[in-house]
Amino acid sequence: MNTADLGLPVDVPSTALFTDQYEFTMVQAALRAGTAGRRSVFEVFTRRLPEGRRYGVVAGTGRVLDAVENFRFDADVIGFLRERGIVDEPTLKWLSSYRFSGDIWGYPEGEVYFPGSPLLRVEGSFAECVLLETVILSILNHDSAIAAAASRMSSAAGGRRLIEMGARRTHELSAVASARAAYVGGFDSTSDLAAGFRYGIPTVGTSAHAFTLLHDSERDAFRAQVDSLGRGTTLLVDTYDVAEAVRTAVEIAGPGLGAVRIDSGDLLLVAHRVRQQLDELGARDTRIVVTSDLDEYAIASLAAAPVDAYGVGTQLVTGSGHPTCSMVYKLVARARSAEPGAPLEPVAKKSLGAKYSLGGRKWAARRLDAESVAEAEVVGTGPVPTELAARQLLVELVRDGKVVARESLDTARERHIAARAALPMSAVQLSRGEPVLPTEYV
Amino acid sequence: MNTADLGLPVDVPSTALFTDQYEFTMVQAALRAGTAGRRSVFEVFTRRLPEGRRYGVVAGTGRVLDAVENFRFDADVIGFLRERGIVDEPTLKWLSSYRFSGDIWGYPEGEVYFPGSPLLRVEGSFAECVLLETVILSILNHDSAIAAAASRMSSAAGGRRLIEMGARRTHELSAVASARAAYVGGFDSTSDLAAGFRYGIPTVGTSAHAFTLLHDSERDAFRAQVDSLGRGTTLLVDTYDVAEAVRTAVEIAGPGLGAVRIDSGDLLLVAHRVRQQLDELGARDTRIVVTSDLDEYAIASLAAAPVDAYGVGTQLVTGSGHPTCSMVYKLVARARSAEPGAPLEPVAKKSLGAKYSLGGRKWAARRLDAESVAEAEVVGTGPVPTELAARQLLVELVRDGKVVARESLDTARERHIAARAALPMSAVQLSRGEPVLPTEYV
Repeated sequence: MNTADLGLPVDVPSTALFTDQYEFTMVQAALRAGTAGRRSVFEVFTRRLPEGRRYGVVAGTGRVLDAVENFRFDADVIGFLRERGIVDEPTLKWLSSYRFSGDIWGYPEGEVYFPGSPLLRVEGSFAECVLLETVILSILNHDSAIAAAASRMSSAAGGRRLIEMGARRTHELSAVASARAAYVGGFDSTSDLAAGFRYGIPTVGTSAHAFTLLHDSERDAFRAQVDSLGRGTTLLVDTYDVAEAVRTAVEIAGPGLGAVRIDSGDLLLVAHRVRQQLDELGARDTRIVVTSDLDEYAIASLAAAPVDAYGVGTQLVTGSGHPTCSMVYKLVARARSAEPGAPLEPVAKKSLGAKYSLGGRKWAARRLDAESVAEAEVVGTGPVPTELAARQLLVELVRDGKVVARESLDTARERHIAARAALPMSAVQLSRGEPVLPTEYV
Repeated sequence: MNTADLGLPVDVPSTALFTDQYEFTMVQAALRAGTAGRRSVFEVFTRRLPEGRRYGVVAGTGRVLDAVENFRFDADVIGFLRERGIVDEPTLKWLSSYRFSGDIWGYPEGEVYFPGSPLLRVEGSFAECVLLETVILSILNHDSAIAAAASRMSSAAGGRRLIEMGARRTHELSAVASARAAYVGGFDSTSDLAAGFRYGIPTVGTSAHAFTLLHDSERDAFRAQVDSLGRGTTLLVDTYDVAEAVRTAVEIAGPGLGAVRIDSGDLLLVAHRVRQQLDELGARDTRIVVTSDLDEYAIASLAAAPVDAYGVGTQLVTGSGHPTCSMVYKLVARARSAEPGAPLEPVAKKSLGAKYSLGGRKWAARRLDAESVAEAEVVGTGPVPTELAARQLLVELVRDGKVVARESLDTARERHIAARAALPMSAVQLSRGEPVLPTEYV
């Protein structure tokens, strides 16, 4: 993969500086101490789900693969590290030929997860693996937070269409990743053209109040929009008086008007009134799109309203109260020497406080009950029990530095819908609760 | 400015697709209706601060200027819009020569703001201005949210050093912008090398538990780190037993050890114990850095602890509970025809509900009391009262499409510290409250 494959609108020649400084200084010290080459296993996991959430959603895996492939050091980056005195010359030399040459296994994108699930396992020399910590966590923590919110919203929407419209509420490139993660979590489309361009996600648009205000009257504005975009367009009907706007809209576009958007007021009440009015005007197929600070609870509360699509912004891109996950990237095993073939030994931090970690390289499997409903997330470090062998969750993503598991976003999206459907029914309750599966360590 | 000036690690050849689809379709409809050329004024403002916050902090202005300069359509982008059928050929032709040619005034970066403050005013033809909506809001809503949290943390730290360490908790490019915004808000440094590379922000690093676990003993790890990085380094002392680690650290590095980091446990208690132990060992100048889910409240609670620096991650990059601002970009005035010189007329949405907007092009000034303490944010559409003329807040940023107000991040950072210091003292209370200045419309 070359940089161009990352696509416009942003070209990432290198992901090597999306890194905390200490990872570089640790590499320097380990190179000098002769420990940099010790075979090491790092795992990504979370100790808890956000409070009250019943499951997590893995998202960003595809972006992690891009980031690992593009983690390399060109002359500009080396020059920066040298000029700032971040690391010494032997380390710069080592970095200049850096290519990740190890193995990565992980939960595939769209899969659900629970506290302790080994979401990603990165194995190689200490130095090549430790450098990837920050960029891997940035991607997974962000994208999985958005996908988890999207998944709850898509459950709540019960099959009605969901449009991601949050670009203006988050960093412009978070927005692109958010649209991608929302799609994995069950959204249907996005308003963000960069996400359409970069990832091929379907894009949609409606109209803004500014367009109505630009014109001398709402009638002029609607006529301008229908003249140019056709009667299938979506007219925004709440700039002045909604009932009058709906009347004008159908008068201008005819009963074949595509949709109307309502962006303010009591959406439940207004949607009912607008539906009745549209029906009376013969516009029975004109859809109603609602927007205005929706979250999964507001979406659920509109289940009985005659709404055809929800546009969701702020609450989607901020993870509906949980804008990040608490995933960490921990060394769980390493060899005692840098000799090839030196056996791995489990390691774990053992300080005071709650940050306990389980050492050792892990597998994970989801055990099903007699009705094929998931009943436990089983995590272990020993041999995989025969009855769980076919239910293992980690798949091979990178082998000897080569990505072996590229897939389409639609594949991840379908996987998510299937994985969620296999959980106990309480998984999709919006109320706060415990993780819907217990994690068992064997 | 060419694309290279945007710098690595990310090259943004064009910001034109960081845009919601409806902005493009509105341009198409307005071009066809003959209204696209009407002179228009858009303003960015917020109707409220995040609940309980006393002031907002403008951040991202410099990034907005970059985004406006790079808002242009190359062949790839035009090809995408054509292939997807987003807009028609006349619109594509218009876009292909797009360069923003209007004027932008705004609150300078680092300034504080309040509900209703006209933070940015974009003036030009409707079509050229409406296209900038999403990218401008993305930048300001994100960066200002982070800067506001940073500002509260820097007040709480009372002069102790603050290190931004949140890259792993947010999108990799949000992280870079967050480090930038944190610096504007009063932070001293970042662990994010990309932010050092892109914006010249000072970078720092400590060490991770993985480094200790890699080695056969904590002693080996400390020796490896000191051998390579010198005794001025920061040793992480909470992997196993803190007291033993501190003893080992001073034994290896000597009393000239730079710093120790504590990342878990009761930081207040542990910091006192570690300080006492360091002093007893003669390491009186060894600094103590604390990390571990700090926010402004935790920082304040450590005011009496012997802490020299705070490393802040998650709560900084997620805006300490408010990861976005509610800034909007609204058409407030436009000409009734596209004729040059046609007079501007104020416009405003007047629907039901709370989304009331004040029409008309605005100025803003901060009125001071007799002691030169700010007492009101004054916003008006008419002539500026003589006594406020010298207290106006908006400055010229772009004239006829050319950026006229580039400045260093240090300038913005100093401006913020001065602006905050001029507010009533209750501004820096961490407790929830009303905005510390009322907004008066005249």
